[in-house]
This record gives sequence, structure tokens and C-alpha cells, in this order.
Amino acid sequence: MAQIIEKQSGVAFQIQKGQKLKVIDPKGGQVSDMVLFNAHDRREKISSGKTMDFEESILITEGNYLWSNRSNKMMHVLEDTNGRNDFLLAPCSPATFKIMYDVDGYHPSCFENLRTHLTKFNIDADDIPTAFNIFMNVQFDAEGKLSVEPPLSKAGDYVLFEAQMDLIVGLTACSAEDSNGGTFKPIHYEVMD
Amino acid sequence: MAQIIEKQSGVAFQIQKGQKLKVIDPKGGQVSDMVLFNAHDRREKISSGKTMDFEESILITEGNYLWSNRSNKMMHVLEDTNGRNDFLLAPCSPATFKIMYDVDGYHPSCFENLRTHLTKFNIDADDIPTAFNIFMNVQFDAEGKLSVEPPLSKAGDYVLFEAQMDLIVGLTACSAEDSNGGTFKPIHYEVMD
Repeated sequence: MAQIIEKQSGVAFQIQKGQKLKVIDPKGGQVSDMVLFNAHDRREKISSGKTMDFEESILITEGNYLWSNRSNKMMHVLEDTNGRNDFLLAPCSPATFKIMYDVDGYHPSCFENLRTHLTKFNIDADDIPTAFNIFMNVQFDAEGKLSVEPPLSKAGDYVLFEAQMDLIVGLTACSAEDSNGGTFKPIHYEVMD
Repeated sequence: MAQIIEKQSGVAFQIQKGQKLKVIDPKGGQVSDMVLFNAHDRREKISSGKTMDFEESILITEGNYLWSNRSNKMMHVLEDTNGRNDFLLAPCSPATFKIMYDVDGYHPSCFENLRTHLTKFNIDADDIPTAFNIFMNVQFDAEGKLSVEPPLSKAGDYVLFEAQMDLIVGLTACSAEDSNGGTFKPIHYEVMD
């Protein structure tokens, strides 16, 4: 029943308030970037700043909510079998690979995959916020220095969300070498009533 | 020569590429929220996610850049005499005071002060991103739990920025009790060639 997001690609779809979204790492060690928009007004969208403020935590996991820029709840995290996600870093983009990794040629990216698939909902590049990076393992020290480490997720780990409003969801199988332990795997997802 | 932002208020103004902006805490212990927009295209704006990604740090201070959602440099932090700023939390808003502090009546907020003053540049509420919170002292532990502590800034502490593009700047003297050690003070600023 699970839908498949092929490696280094993405999808966008709608879910209704009360429906559940299960995001699964089928092979282990693979990040999935997720962005959310109010299905009835795409100017309301997921906000890392509002979420960390209201949840009083950098790390978001089981029991937490994902909040919008208008201070409304968008998703409730019902289950999280891995427990490590990131909400600090922007989706990898062509600029990320150029600035951070000195890649001059084409490189697939979460930003491009989100942009491409969200176009059908009239959402464009500038509307894409910092994503909730499921399974992403960004470590920080007491001075706030960040390092991107391989995900801790094992094959079959998942995060189960419940929609708190009707949503447009953008979801990827992340394209950045450093975020995924050097290999690219698919992501599976299920939408359930 | 310094301009004054009265307590619990805000301003918005333009500065040109190469100009410097000095944000001063004249009495000590006062936060100032800052948002930035490309003066020629307000859809390009300051991004916490891009900044933490490219600067590889949660804490942003002297030597760091503030980056836009389009992966361009907006400001260079030339000097920072205090050294503690926050880029995790969204500007305090009416919802903050209701959800976090159980305040039902009117309460001034950075969000309202930014919105009110940015209107003249055709920037509206939904366009306001997570601000760079100058002098804000948000502590985090190894598990990522956040606590808002009184600012460490002393009277006369300042942060000096150099604009990397023509900018619209929104700037406040923050209105939240917890962020400012329980008392509200003005913020001063200077724009210099």
C-alpha cells in the first residue's frame, strides 16, 4: 500500500485534516525533507521558528506538533521509531552543492524536487520554507557548531503524523551525499484515514 | 546621530549595499528582532535555515553572514561586542503571548511592530520570516531543549552589519517579558556609509 519516492526525487499531494501520514525509511539511513502548506491558503506554511518556539526544543519528535507561520498546528507527531530529525537546515539546493560542496555541474536537490512537484499547487520556489527533515541527523555542540552525520534510522523506521488541518505536503528522498551516509535510497509513505 | 526605537516598538527603513548598520543596546539587557528583504524584490528575504546551513552554526556572530532564501549574502557581521544572538525563534506575536504566556488581552509584539512598519514597503504579515534576534539569549542543552534567558548584553553593546545588497530592514525593541529580563528598554541604531 505504500507509495514509493524513488531515490533523489520528490512528490507533492494533499491530505485532509485527521488523516495520518506515515513516512518510512525502507532501507535505513535515508533522509526525507517535508514541507507543509494550508490546502486552502498556501500562504500559511510550516515554520521552524514557530515550531521551536512553541515546542521549546530544537529536536522535534513523538508528541510534538509542527506549527505554521500563523501559529496554528499543522501536524501532530504520533510515533517516531527513530527519534532523530532536523528542523535547522534549509533543503539542499543547487546553491548548497555549489557553495558547500564545490559542485559546479548539475546535482539533484530537495529544493528542486519540492519546487517541481509543488508547482501544480501554485506554490513556487520563493514560497518553499525550511523543511522538517525527517531522519536527518544534524548534531550540535554547546557552542552551536553543526555537523551533518549519517542518519541513525534503520530499515523500516518511520514517523507517523496526524494532519491538524487540510494540507498540501511536499516530500522528498533527499539528494545530498553528506546527509544520507553517501548512498541514495528511496522513501516510502502511506496516507491513512 | 543614533536613531531611537522606543521600547516595545519598531521601525522599517532601506539601506544600500555597502552601507553599515549598527544596532545598539543603550541600557543593556534588551533584544532587537531584525528581518531583511531584498529592496528590489521582497520575495527574497532572510533565512535562518540557509544561514545555519552555510555558516554551519546555530549561533551567529562576528565574521558570519546572514543569508537569504535564494542563497545570497544579505549582511556581514563585522563586529559583535556582546556575542550572543538567536536565530531559532520566531518573532513574538499575539499568538505567542496567548499560547506561551496565557495572555488573553492586547500585548505589544515584535510581529505586530514589524508588520505595521513593513506595510509601507508592501510586505505583509505572511511575508515575515523568522527574525535574527540580536542580543537574544536562547540557551539549548544537548537534547535541544530551549530556554529563553535574560540578554547578556551590557549598556552600549552593539552589533555592526555591512549590507551585501540593497535592503529593506525591519527592526524592533522586543516586547516579550521573558526575552528582556522583565523590563522594556529602547534600541538605538545608526546607518553609516
